[in-house]
Amino acid sequence: MKVEGRHYRTIWPVENKPGVTRIIDQRVLPHKFVTIELKTVEDYAVAISDMAVRGAGLIGATAAYGMWAAAITAPDTRTAFDEWSALAAERLIATRPTAKNLEWAVSRQLKTMSEAADVHGARDAARRGAAEVADSDAAMCRDIGTHGLEIIRKIRERKINDGRGGEPVRILTHCNAGWLAFVDFGSATAPIYAAHDEGIPIHVWVDETRPRAQGAALTAWELGSHGVPHHLIVDNAGGHLMQHGLVDLVITGADRVTAGGDAANKIGTYLKALAAEDNAVPFYIALPSSTFDWDLDDGITGIKIEERGADEVRYARGLSRSTGLPDEVLICPETSAARNWGFDVTPRRFITGLITERGICPATPKGIRKLFPDFTGSSKESAE
Amino acid sequence: MKVEGRHYRTIWPVENKPGVTRIIDQRVLPHKFVTIELKTVEDYAVAISDMAVRGAGLIGATAAYGMWAAAITAPDTRTAFDEWSALAAERLIATRPTAKNLEWAVSRQLKTMSEAADVHGARDAARRGAAEVADSDAAMCRDIGTHGLEIIRKIRERKINDGRGGEPVRILTHCNAGWLAFVDFGSATAPIYAAHDEGIPIHVWVDETRPRAQGAALTAWELGSHGVPHHLIVDNAGGHLMQHGLVDLVITGADRVTAGGDAANKIGTYLKALAAEDNAVPFYIALPSSTFDWDLDDGITGIKIEERGADEVRYARGLSRSTGLPDEVLICPETSAARNWGFDVTPRRFITGLITERGICPATPKGIRKLFPDFTGSSKESAE
Repeated sequence: MKVEGRHYRTIWPVENKPGVTRIIDQRVLPHKFVTIELKTVEDYAVAISDMAVRGAGLIGATAAYGMWAAAITAPDTRTAFDEWSALAAERLIATRPTAKNLEWAVSRQLKTMSEAADVHGARDAARRGAAEVADSDAAMCRDIGTHGLEIIRKIRERKINDGRGGEPVRILTHCNAGWLAFVDFGSATAPIYAAHDEGIPIHVWVDETRPRAQGAALTAWELGSHGVPHHLIVDNAGGHLMQHGLVDLVITGADRVTAGGDAANKIGTYLKALAAEDNAVPFYIALPSSTFDWDLDDGITGIKIEERGADEVRYARGLSRSTGLPDEVLICPETSAARNWGFDVTPRRFITGLITERGICPATPKGIRKLFPDFTGSSKESAE
Repeated sequence: MKVEGRHYRTIWPVENKPGVTRIIDQRVLPHKFVTIELKTVEDYAVAISDMAVRGAGLIGATAAYGMWAAAITAPDTRTAFDEWSALAAERLIATRPTAKNLEWAVSRQLKTMSEAADVHGARDAARRGAAEVADSDAAMCRDIGTHGLEIIRKIRERKINDGRGGEPVRILTHCNAGWLAFVDFGSATAPIYAAHDEGIPIHVWVDETRPRAQGAALTAWELGSHGVPHHLIVDNAGGHLMQHGLVDLVITGADRVTAGGDAANKIGTYLKALAAEDNAVPFYIALPSSTFDWDLDDGITGIKIEERGADEVRYARGLSRSTGLPDEVLICPETSAARNWGFDVTPRRFITGLITERGICPATPKGIRKLFPDFTGSSKESAE
């Protein structure tokens, strides 16, 4: 997507430098736009573990490029090359142990490299493999955008027919399921960018998404950079907006969707789904098929919700008004404890549909199976 | 309630100093506990307009004491005394033009003073009148506590019968409807304090309540000061907690409740009510009868929701980790705009009951009328 008028992916190979890529350093967003170069396997590992890159799709692509760096920097003899690659794979996988997409991308690269006839061929295979992982991530998101665009077009038509053509289509989103979490386009944002680029007037309500404020820091930044009109709102505001007809559509991403249709996503998503249901606002989850957990049916009992450190809740991060530097402020008494669950589960009955790279399906076991008859049993690719 | 082991009201007269009171300076909470002395009418007016005191009940009591200060500092001749008092009343009412409780308290004082036989009697009437306003606020809140305690006792009994006697009664609250908003006890917190003081094990989930974080800054502070176990959570977390059986009861305050039973309260209350309904968790609104708007039935169409400045959303306030001083941090891109509605309306169908100083009633026109047959027509005392 665009930043300062120029097209960017979140990771891209540097010309004439094998194994080298540049990434957008997401740690300093939204206050600075900085790209950094990754050369060594260690550079890639640190970028992932320090969250300079984050989001299932982007982590997978970064790891795949990291394996290319491993192949380039490995010794030339086959045995040493293979040992070096295996060590690099271990190092990369260890950065975010629960990110299944990462493991999948690294294993895919190892396999491709091992199948090559010689070290030269393996290096070439790693290059092609990384590009394939990145391109397929971007293509999946683009296809999610194409399918989701149909929903927005219909809302636009209905508003025109209702004499509300002067209003934009108003979309609420929670957290960041944007292009910053993938290689390009994003999942929840892909239909938004597609509609905006087609000239449909769009306005996005961006949930702050406490405690880490990915909405305020990342979604607001990427929408603004691409030129999509938006307003930041607190996480408390969505219900009021829906009660007053100010939301036409909710789209969020997901960290895991069960084969039954329940969706785990950033904490607070469930509250927005409840408000959407109460006000007859369509509520969609956008996801690449790699986010399905084919082994699970009931998300509430089956998905273990990570609890994170209390200080994310006790502090808020941003740019200090007095020093102009990044800082954190304590918002509660020093002595008050906090609890911090990272995700919640939206039961399928509140989800209007799932927008995937293959099309839109109901959030039901039958609906999902019909669109993905070939995906069964254990999920290799589920992301979180 | 207690602070550092000692009992406090939020405003109290200073012994042997007519017209003089002390208040807790709520602007520096939760990081400092500071009390300040109010002497002149201007002191009282600034304390209200600068929000050193806030909350309907406390604003009313502060204004009533402010009229006592006016009586003490007024000239001794009757005409000059009356003119001075009228000017003071105007000054006090102008501080928070939408706070009806303030206007009510000031008018009540003016009337009492004008009915006195002479200036000396008027001064005494102002002293007594202020004490009456403060005492009746505290008494109303204490009675809300007594009635709400019954709900908590029943939940405690049920948990013991279910073999869950080892667990505390878990109560979720939003914003600050605590003793800091009144003279003592609070509305939503009154049943909590009553239960805690009776020895019922209680645990409170304190919603942060963005954007102004009154939950994190005020509710967490007052619960901690009084010794009530609690955890701070982000506003996004309540739905997840209710899905997993971690909330036995929700109690919030209200800024305005219609005669039909719809409740306007801090933005985000409606989302918690939706989650409570979906998980069969009882959801109560605690309010003194002065919060009823007897002229309104439908809250969604009838209650105008104040929109506040965008910077409350774009910034978060607290104590800087790097300087140790109060500061604000910008959480979004400098170029992103924000919208900031202060309240939302919870429709009556999501409210299990209203806890008032007269008892508990259903949030229905009939239920409210039955408990308040004598309150009809225009509301003089409704607070916001």
